[in-house]
Amino acid sequence: MTKREPPTKEATVADVARAAGVSKAQAARALGGYGAVSEQVLSLVVAAAEQLGYRPNQLAKSMNTGRSNSIGVVVGDIENAHFGLALRGISDEVRGAGYTVVLVNTDEDLAAEAAAVQELLQQRVAGLIVAPCSSTETSHLEAAQAGGRAVVLFDRGIHDLALDTVRVDFEHAALRVGRLLLDAGHRRIGYVSSQRARAAYAHGMDLGLSPVADRVEGIERAFREAGAEWDPALVKLNATSDDALASACAELLDRPDPATAVVCSDSLIALGVLGQIKRRGLRIPDDISVVAYDDFPWTELIEPPLTVVAQPVYDMGREAARALLRRLGHRVPAEQLPLRANLIERASVGAPSPAADRIPQS
Amino acid sequence: MTKREPPTKEATVADVARAAGVSKAQAARALGGYGAVSEQVLSLVVAAAEQLGYRPNQLAKSMNTGRSNSIGVVVGDIENAHFGLALRGISDEVRGAGYTVVLVNTDEDLAAEAAAVQELLQQRVAGLIVAPCSSTETSHLEAAQAGGRAVVLFDRGIHDLALDTVRVDFEHAALRVGRLLLDAGHRRIGYVSSQRARAAYAHGMDLGLSPVADRVEGIERAFREAGAEWDPALVKLNATSDDALASACAELLDRPDPATAVVCSDSLIALGVLGQIKRRGLRIPDDISVVAYDDFPWTELIEPPLTVVAQPVYDMGREAARALLRRLGHRVPAEQLPLRANLIERASVGAPSPAADRIPQS
Repeated sequence: MTKREPPTKEATVADVARAAGVSKAQAARALGGYGAVSEQVLSLVVAAAEQLGYRPNQLAKSMNTGRSNSIGVVVGDIENAHFGLALRGISDEVRGAGYTVVLVNTDEDLAAEAAAVQELLQQRVAGLIVAPCSSTETSHLEAAQAGGRAVVLFDRGIHDLALDTVRVDFEHAALRVGRLLLDAGHRRIGYVSSQRARAAYAHGMDLGLSPVADRVEGIERAFREAGAEWDPALVKLNATSDDALASACAELLDRPDPATAVVCSDSLIALGVLGQIKRRGLRIPDDISVVAYDDFPWTELIEPPLTVVAQPVYDMGREAARALLRRLGHRVPAEQLPLRANLIERASVGAPSPAADRIPQS
Repeated sequence: MTKREPPTKEATVADVARAAGVSKAQAARALGGYGAVSEQVLSLVVAAAEQLGYRPNQLAKSMNTGRSNSIGVVVGDIENAHFGLALRGISDEVRGAGYTVVLVNTDEDLAAEAAAVQELLQQRVAGLIVAPCSSTETSHLEAAQAGGRAVVLFDRGIHDLALDTVRVDFEHAALRVGRLLLDAGHRRIGYVSSQRARAAYAHGMDLGLSPVADRVEGIERAFREAGAEWDPALVKLNATSDDALASACAELLDRPDPATAVVCSDSLIALGVLGQIKRRGLRIPDDISVVAYDDFPWTELIEPPLTVVAQPVYDMGREAARALLRRLGHRVPAEQLPLRANLIERASVGAPSPAADRIPQS
């Protein structure tokens, strides 16, 4: 690493006051543009500020408007290309209105999300776009809203919280995934997600206004339509680490009556599940069928190419940004981008392996 | 989208002053904790602030320290998992010291980078960690440094700019890539990168203190060692879009003497190049060999598994954060994490295709 001398200190209000020979309160009033200050003090302070290269504190300057030119975005996992793409949509949309996007990553941790919201509010961001990690713990978002800051939720919503919410419509695609697998003969369909929950999934469990809720509901509905029996124990949540994902796969695959198909909730989950399948020497789709949410380029390059549900993540980001810009008084296009997910059938779904049809051992 | 009423306005200093029956300057002094203010005014202002739910402006509050509790991180492309992973390393390291990370994405655009640095400085971030998109246009970083703000560069450095710089050591791995391909019989080795440059690559061109410079140098050095002739025209820069990448691949593959091996500068480039290879019906490694930088999970799942150069991106992020924390006066571990890239041989390199050995047509 290149070494350099410790930085010289940036000029503060106190430095300006000292150089101008006035009190700190006078300097602060003069620099902040509020309160009574004489012409003489003003000219002394301005001259001193220029000489010292004083950089006006944007947030102090904006005390009148109370807003900076930033949009704060809070997401759970920026390593997931899903959020990277949404962020690009947000950035592309707000750039034209003169805003910079500042992003905070929360690792899907509620305390980190609350701290991020607090930090961004203190930085006086003009508004917030949040993919909330919890559908129940929402006091930090309610506080932001109550404080008059524009807040838009994306990717996931929250029941009973009256915030603009931009989500992809998974109803049709999720039902098609369920039907596709049922029609191929699958009855034991696993679902793996990183969504956090305090308990294992059970029938009727409230997953909030989340894509996971929509996707699980789609499979359930397909089972209801077909009069087939659905086993909610095959829905594995909390796969937030390599270990947790390995455990989820073990519970699905290493049992007498293994899942014959696995639906992966996002592309990171899919990579983990594919690794686990490879480790066991299982072939896709001969031994196990796989469907993944999110259509990223690698899903088409692997052998066999993955059957996926494509979702308009970039457009979801743009719509979230437009909703926020509207709240901030900007004119944005009235027509809304279609945000509907779409099943793309490739080659990772086949008939269940006959080996998987054996009777569960007691 | 859920609709709600327009937000109520957040309480300002003026609102507090009005409610307390004091002047705005008095309220500002009381709330800001500077300058002379009577006990009576202070208690009136505090009571009014509490009643109105006034949220102290962190930046105004921090006029004395001039710093917020944020670290600003500026990267070129957050869609590249490389930066997502580095960001996690940065976040994990600074969290313990009580900092939040705010990220700005620049799309590898210099004007956007300069605006991002300006914005973050105005938000009074404690320090900046930047992966600079240019090795020559550095006035915005010099200004930040001159203003006394701690700045650390990562991933890429800048000649003659005395900033702490944290980079992965590619010397050994890049030479091994060159030798591996030469030993397999390749002489026409393409290199594809999104690094921006004003002209096509030519021998001796200064690519700055960038990983691309190190990697190209490794191949060149292997050629020099072997006494083989190196064709710098096969280095394709500026592959910043799908179209640009398709053009680069066309220039490498659709010629009488095509490249027999392609080195991909990152995982996004690799996905694009693999798509282009697939579109042409070329088989790896029978028709063309491929090496990619960055070892992400999908590289091992495709057929054939990719030969890659793994780099300790997460640790690079942690080291960059440690360098910044040192500048900010925190105690951090003295020992440095090893930041050395490492070639992992899988199955995407073979002998050149005999079909590629034909004499170039005039």
